Amino acid sequence: MKRKLTHYDARGHASMVDVGKKEITERSATAQGFVRMSREVLAALPSNPKGDPLEVARIAGISAAKKTSDLIPLCHQLPLTHVSIELEIEERGVRIRATAATAARTGVEMEALTAVAVAALTIYDMTKALDKGIEIGEIHLVEKSGGKSGAYRREKRAG
Amino acid sequence: MKRKLTHYDARGHASMVDVGKKEITERSATAQGFVRMSREVLAALPSNPKGDPLEVARIAGISAAKKTSDLIPLCHQLPLTHVSIELEIEERGVRIRATAATAARTGVEMEALTAVAVAALTIYDMTKALDKGIEIGEIHLVEKSGGKSGAYRREKRAG
Amino acid sequence: MKRKLTHYDARGHASMVDVGKKEITERSATAQGFVRMSREVLAALPSNPKGDPLEVARIAGISAAKKTSDLIPLCHQLPLTHVSIELEIEERGVRIRATAATAARTGVEMEALTAVAVAALTIYDMTKALDKGIEIGEIHLVEKSGGKSGAYRREKRAG
Amino acid sequence: MKRKLTHYDARGHASMVDVGKKEITERSATAQGFVRMSREVLAALPSNPKGDPLEVARIAGISAAKKTSDLIPLCHQLPLTHVSIELEIEERGVRIRATAATAARTGVEMEALTAVAVAALTIYDMTKALDKGIEIGEIHLVEKSGGKSGAYRREKRAG
Amino acid sequence: MKRKLTHYDARGHASMVDVGKKEITERSATAQGFVRMSREVLAALPSNPKGDPLEVARIAGISAAKKTSDLIPLCHQLPLTHVSIELEIEERGVRIRATAATAARTGVEMEALTAVAVAALTIYDMTKALDKGIEIGEIHLVEKSGGKSGAYRREKRAG
Amino acid sequence: MKRKLTHYDARGHASMVDVGKKEITERSATAQGFVRMSREVLAALPSNPKGDPLEVARIAGISAAKKTSDLIPLCHQLPLTHVSIELEIEERGVRIRATAATAARTGVEMEALTAVAVAALTIYDMTKALDKGIEIGEIHLVEKSGGKSGAYRREKRAG
Repeated sequence: MKRKLTHYDARGHASMVDVGKKEITERSATAQGFVRMSREVLAALPSNPKGDPLEVARIAGISAAKKTSDLIPLCHQLPLTHVSIELEIEERGVRIRATAATAARTGVEMEALTAVAVAALTIYDMTKALDKGIEIGEIHLVEKSGGKSGAYRREKRAG
Repeated sequence: MKRKLTHYDARGHASMVDVGKKEITERSATAQGFVRMSREVLAALPSNPKGDPLEVARIAGISAAKKTSDLIPLCHQLPLTHVSIELEIEERGVRIRATAATAARTGVEMEALTAVAVAALTIYDMTKALDKGIEIGEIHLVEKSGGKSGAYRREKRAG
Repeated sequence: MKRKLTHYDARGHASMVDVGKKEITERSATAQGFVRMSREVLAALPSNPKGDPLEVARIAGISAAKKTSDLIPLCHQLPLTHVSIELEIEERGVRIRATAATAARTGVEMEALTAVAVAALTIYDMTKALDKGIEIGEIHLVEKSGGKSGAYRREKRAG
Repeated sequence: MKRKLTHYDARGHASMVDVGKKEITERSATAQGFVRMSREVLAALPSNPKGDPLEVARIAGISAAKKTSDLIPLCHQLPLTHVSIELEIEERGVRIRATAATAARTGVEMEALTAVAVAALTIYDMTKALDKGIEIGEIHLVEKSGGKSGAYRREKRAG
Repeated sequence: MKRKLTHYDARGHASMVDVGKKEITERSATAQGFVRMSREVLAALPSNPKGDPLEVARIAGISAAKKTSDLIPLCHQLPLTHVSIELEIEERGVRIRATAATAARTGVEMEALTAVAVAALTIYDMTKALDKGIEIGEIHLVEKSGGKSGAYRREKRAG
Repeated sequence: MKRKLTHYDARGHASMVDVGKKEITERSATAQGFVRMSREVLAALPSNPKGDPLEVARIAGISAAKKTSDLIPLCHQLPLTHVSIELEIEERGVRIRATAATAARTGVEMEALTAVAVAALTIYDMTKALDKGIEIGEIHLVEKSGGKSGAYRREKRAG
């Protein structure tokens, strides 16, 4: 195995990868995650008469995408040109899908993943009084485009 | 089902739960999560000659626990008295376990869960060059203590 | 006029007021503001088929209340026990009303006012493509309770 | 009315507008606001022997302009090339005028408005011990330049 | 040497010290630092006709004291009851002295030191166009009070 | 002396320097600092069996470099392309050296200096239980490149 962990310098110390010589290109990434909860809690979500209970999670995820470099120590600061988050109520929980885009020297995978994770935590926060067994999982990169390493698309797997 | 989503007021709008009448008690919470990665990437982690590749994730998780109320819109600001994070390399990935404690009017589940999620994202960030299929999952509350609702301990489940 | 600006020390320099000798008491404050916009824009707000366009402003205001001491240089850090924001569409615009509460050594007026101001800015942001003449105004304290100076309630005035 | 709220996607959910296809151009915006206070308080402002009581507000406004995307959920992160704030003591209060500039894909109206709002809140904070009836208002865009929609200049109105 | 580094757990990993069993007591700390600069730059400082060039540094230091736990990974979040900063122009530079106070389970040395360091960096920023040889130094704790370890007062040393 | 403090406008008020007309060029800066401590404390640092006690400081410094414009009021927001921090244990303390790089309209001296200062504060925090006399000093710019004023390299001096 020749490939190495890029966040360590020659002496084995953590450092922010030098992207100074990379080209600025348009880049986007889509990530996904799932918040598993009981049917009882799921049923409570849409019964809310006037508000959209998932809207808070959507806003939290978008805001978090913009804070990625403040949360992940070795992430670069990227000016996002777009962030969107889709939330779908499925049979066993809520599916979260986030897309982030930028024109920058490095990719936006971490921004999309951070948006998913924080949207999931927010759903957890708003439903935890009903169910302490909620579980957040299946957080992964769905696809990315742009940059030298080119496009990536995850193959379908059995969920 | 009589129980309701506590983060909505009588008109169905999101609001921060009023904890003004709750007692200040000692509270703690432990949460867990897992970063699944290929054996190839796992093997690369400890081979780093001078640094501990998981130390960055530990610091990121502790810092994130302190930012929880800035990430989760309806979370209260809690002064943490303690945060610790354990990271274990297992056969199929890295297990993360975070404990947070406070003396406050509301619990620290979200702080422990946020620490786990951000530590997981940090591990992802530092290994993603080697494996785009890394998946973060199994984020859940292990146990909590303190407060009116008392102690909770998750039952063992098949992983 | 004997009263003086409390944020200046004996030498005339800005400093954070020393509240170390004050008692911890329950405190709350309510503030109000108004975003004036054309009827055309107001009409566009509720026509949104699935989302509540004011929900984003509500979340932004709650989050901002928690950041007050980071925005206002000489404000103390206060752990809020409650924040809520009401938004009403009136004939000439949107009325914002925010309440914040804490148990602390100093009051939460600035937290309630900051929530109003940032909710107003968020409404502005989401409607500015339709109307560049939107105006934010009438931001003032409605009432406060707790602390040595006691309760305050603003007298009604002609708008 | 054909124009629509740009911060909602096709499904009516809040999202950050995609500016990826917009050109990077030089943009600037000027906003204004007013903090109305009693003559008694106004008289106390310049009597401060060694410090400039409005300097704290100026610094707070400049710092806040840089935090705009952290405060307004759907705002893009813009690297500001310039921010300046003018504060004038008038007969009935303090006039605030802020200008922000950038070279980016979207405008800086919100940065200028946020600078005005936070400078106003800071003046409020530093004078509130003298007068609980202080009111912040008249926050509006004065002019903007750059971008596809071109220059805008607000017409004079009776104050 | 029996004493040990308190920020490491039994396994040698960084963790936030558990202060849950400590008493809440009144605590204060004073720290000092020095920004050494040429006489030429020092002479330029007070010649500024209308502003106090050191006021920006004072505000920056106070704001930074409130961000200490966000900057220093293993610091606890402390609600400060007071922060003040004195800046004196001396023959060879600017002396900075900061005092922070709280009622908490752990001390405020880091808050006072952070205030000094960021005030110093701000002075550097505002004078660096005139002198690239400016040096920040002599940052140390002057005294502290409160807590189990009791009062500390640094002995005078030759500067 | 004709040169003037660039952070003040024509009226003597603090403002962020307008860099809108400057070219975007590659820029880097290296800064240095020193944390002086007793031999006893220095001896405790490497004896830590499993962790690298300086790794926390390195992460803190890198994270702080990204927050520079949030700490220093008149600093521009710069997207860093690289940050690295070297820490060396010397006979009388720990030497810190930080390098920051960007492609921007203004330089990164403050980012490198902020990384050094916060790494130093973090070392202080982690060793202060052993020695209250620790002193942070010798924080200065070592070299910079890029921009109109060109390269700078500090001459060697007696330490």
